[in-house]
Amino acid sequence: MSEEKHSPISPETVHEIECLLREVSNILKRKGREILHHFPVTPPQLNALLWLGKEGDMTIGELSQKMCLACSTMTDLVDRMEKNNLVARVRDGRDRRVVQIHLLERGAEVVKEVLEARRQYLAEVLSHISEEQAVRIQENLAILYNEMKRT
Amino acid sequence: MSEEKHSPISPETVHEIECLLREVSNILKRKGREILHHFPVTPPQLNALLWLGKEGDMTIGELSQKMCLACSTMTDLVDRMEKNNLVARVRDGRDRRVVQIHLLERGAEVVKEVLEARRQYLAEVLSHISEEQAVRIQENLAILYNEMKRT
Repeated sequence: MSEEKHSPISPETVHEIECLLREVSNILKRKGREILHHFPVTPPQLNALLWLGKEGDMTIGELSQKMCLACSTMTDLVDRMEKNNLVARVRDGRDRRVVQIHLLERGAEVVKEVLEARRQYLAEVLSHISEEQAVRIQENLAILYNEMKRT
Repeated sequence: MSEEKHSPISPETVHEIECLLREVSNILKRKGREILHHFPVTPPQLNALLWLGKEGDMTIGELSQKMCLACSTMTDLVDRMEKNNLVARVRDGRDRRVVQIHLLERGAEVVKEVLEARRQYLAEVLSHISEEQAVRIQENLAILYNEMKRT
């Protein structure tokens, strides 16, 4: 856990950033849920669709690992999405014994529309600030994200 | 949903910020879950403890509203936290018929320790950047947060 620090960030700054990230994540989570009320998916279903869109076909086991969910929970989730024609269970081309979850066109469409709604919300959030300020927010988030990825 | 925009943020910037916020939130969620493995609480339990710490005693109904959970789910959650001595059901001083959930010392202690562990993680994340850069991240997050709060 404790590796050598290259530069000492003051505890106050760390404290502030931790609070801000928690608050921003909470608002996004609440808003994200509100947005999903207009779509035929729940938050974990959207998450599964995002993974399938990003990484392609996966088994239930792989998907449940990505999402930190129990396989049984994941199976229920996939069952409901299959009923709604968002995903389909397909046989692996190389090994017909393996069943993979495949993102259907309707599932991809829902993902696209949800992300568009999220961007619309963000555009509204940012509508009172300048493009320059928005770019600074983007740049600083990118720095934070890159540091998080390598930790 | 569509109010007049004060300055037009480019779709690319909005797109980038949406992606970054989603990624950062995902990492924080995953990391937050990892941190909780060392504590006797689940993510929704921590959330409930945070609310009780922030806003004081609440009924199950109020707490379930804050957390967007069904009352029955909330009741189970409180039952388990009561067993672990994190919270207690107490009678309201003004109206003895009303039962409120009260954060116990051990619950407050857990919250304190979890937040400390989150700050330790963040300090590590930020250990490769300068204090000036960290302050810029903080300032930009604060601007974003303020815009989110008023939307």
